[in-house]
Amino acid sequence: MKAPELQASEWFNTDKDLKISDFEGKVLVIEAFQMLCPGCVSHGVPLAQKIERTFPHDQVAVIGLHTVFEHHEAMTPVSLAAFLHEYRITFPVGVDMASDTAMPLTMQAYHMRGTPSLVLIDKEGQLRAQHLGDVSELQLGAEIANLVGERVAVRVDDDPTQVNLGQCNADGCTV
Amino acid sequence: MKAPELQASEWFNTDKDLKISDFEGKVLVIEAFQMLCPGCVSHGVPLAQKIERTFPHDQVAVIGLHTVFEHHEAMTPVSLAAFLHEYRITFPVGVDMASDTAMPLTMQAYHMRGTPSLVLIDKEGQLRAQHLGDVSELQLGAEIANLVGERVAVRVDDDPTQVNLGQCNADGCTV
Amino acid sequence: MKAPELQASEWFNTDKDLKISDFEGKVLVIEAFQMLCPGCVSHGVPLAQKIERTFPHDQVAVIGLHTVFEHHEAMTPVSLAAFLHEYRITFPVGVDMASDTAMPLTMQAYHMRGTPSLVLIDKEGQLRAQHLGDVSELQLGAEIANLVGERVAVRVDDDPTQVNLGQCNADGCTV
Amino acid sequence: MKAPELQASEWFNTDKDLKISDFEGKVLVIEAFQMLCPGCVSHGVPLAQKIERTFPHDQVAVIGLHTVFEHHEAMTPVSLAAFLHEYRITFPVGVDMASDTAMPLTMQAYHMRGTPSLVLIDKEGQLRAQHLGDVSELQLGAEIANLVGERVAVRVDDDPTQVNLGQCNADGCTV
Repeated sequence: MKAPELQASEWFNTDKDLKISDFEGKVLVIEAFQMLCPGCVSHGVPLAQKIERTFPHDQVAVIGLHTVFEHHEAMTPVSLAAFLHEYRITFPVGVDMASDTAMPLTMQAYHMRGTPSLVLIDKEGQLRAQHLGDVSELQLGAEIANLVGERVAVRVDDDPTQVNLGQCNADGCTV
Repeated sequence: MKAPELQASEWFNTDKDLKISDFEGKVLVIEAFQMLCPGCVSHGVPLAQKIERTFPHDQVAVIGLHTVFEHHEAMTPVSLAAFLHEYRITFPVGVDMASDTAMPLTMQAYHMRGTPSLVLIDKEGQLRAQHLGDVSELQLGAEIANLVGERVAVRVDDDPTQVNLGQCNADGCTV
Repeated sequence: MKAPELQASEWFNTDKDLKISDFEGKVLVIEAFQMLCPGCVSHGVPLAQKIERTFPHDQVAVIGLHTVFEHHEAMTPVSLAAFLHEYRITFPVGVDMASDTAMPLTMQAYHMRGTPSLVLIDKEGQLRAQHLGDVSELQLGAEIANLVGERVAVRVDDDPTQVNLGQCNADGCTV
Repeated sequence: MKAPELQASEWFNTDKDLKISDFEGKVLVIEAFQMLCPGCVSHGVPLAQKIERTFPHDQVAVIGLHTVFEHHEAMTPVSLAAFLHEYRITFPVGVDMASDTAMPLTMQAYHMRGTPSLVLIDKEGQLRAQHLGDVSELQLGAEIANLVGERVAVRVDDDPTQVNLGQCNADGCTV
């Protein structure tokens, strides 16, 4: 399945409006988070930072997506900017575009069920995996390596979304 | 030394404007924090919550103080309210009163050097200890028990402030 | 209740055969452990080491007691000596005296229900608290401080043993 | 480089004397540890257990190797058996064959510099990586996935041993 396009009203840590196609040839990791979601702060965002440090940047790209679906007035771009500074997040972060419901547009398009959600997109822009809540680093390392190792070839997945439900009551925020 | 009075522009989780004298007869623990300070989120606030769960409420009271000295526009009361909800903080939290400098008034009066700062005030309203950054739970448990066990009596400390400097570069925020 | 006497077949990190009376005037903390009990290694023994580092040695003494009640042939004094060296345990450790049952003598006398067990004995040699499994550091710090602060006086507890049952299935070893 | 043969005087959790060739067609992970090495207990052995749980057993095999190079009299097979039971280690564990020096034979053949050491051997029995001390799970997951994904083909590494030196002073045991 083609990964739905990113719809962001604003970007941090980058000068341009990023699109999925900007990452073709690389594995793209999207960390969808909310700055006031405890599970995002304690493990979602740190995991994205570890991925950025572990894999070569010409093979794996990491971006964040601020997918606010609650407390909108508390998590404005002004607050997000300070959060990114305090937590030393240096990868590009987009603000998911507000919709006429509580859930923003990209989050809807990916059928995300909460935050943190980690999305893996392959070198050809196909959505290959989506994890909600806590993720095993061993398994994630293996999944990323598998995508890095792939030859460019068309592959069709009927249902590529592998949702990890899990210890998300206290840690993460389910929709 | 008499503990400086609390100066708060707003309170959460309580109906009244709290004063130091409201806690006479109890040991008062003040957790001074900023909602976007990583060390406050990872250990300062959780420690205050543990103190609240561990000691009898008729002997030890815990309150928070939102002492914002940076990114003021990012940590408004609207954002703080959502933070308290998401992190399930149920003790009273005051918003330290803004001054004409970056540092708010109560924080100035206590000569705090950053966040998280944990303040211990005895049953008679005397400032007895002040810790910056990470704190040993064993030692803190002992300090609180010592204050709980004290007979009410005048005690004069020339310099009651015991500042723990420490692993505050990455964890906490020094002024 | 008078604390039952220590019955050890051998001592490490000390030249003499220690008795409860050797610690009169100090609070005595006894960490009862087995070197192959996972909960003892991960939190029981480290907690005893923290107590030793936190409190003044003229007020609080820490000793260990190797209370082997299973796998006796695997946890001989020869193995214990290497364990103490590798884990840098410097406080005195006694080998609880074997009995004609699996459970050694001191462990029996204290009615311990497993390892790790942490025992608190006051300045006058009275048994004041006994915790099985994981222990809150805040609470333990308070308990030790309370005993340190006590004037020497006779106090009779009908049942001084406060046994903390808890997360001892995976962590500790219940008898 | 062809992985040196396993030389074990005894095996646990298996009926047969295992050889490298028994694992051809699978990626083989060898966790070399000592039961009284703190870093082995806190992260080396748990990591091996996680690998065993994460990867399909028809693709990745995990075995342990008890490479005792100090305190030999304290870490005999009798003690090891109790350790394996208490820590619920269910993968095969070999006792590295004693030599006329302190260091046992397999450990010598692999030029291991201490414990824990984690060795990766590919489907064709080639030694591909060797890590001393703490290892990033993300990176290790990627390395294992890369070996799983390989077509069977001859590959020559001049120096395949990638030794991770690191936080091994307190955690691990360097030769």
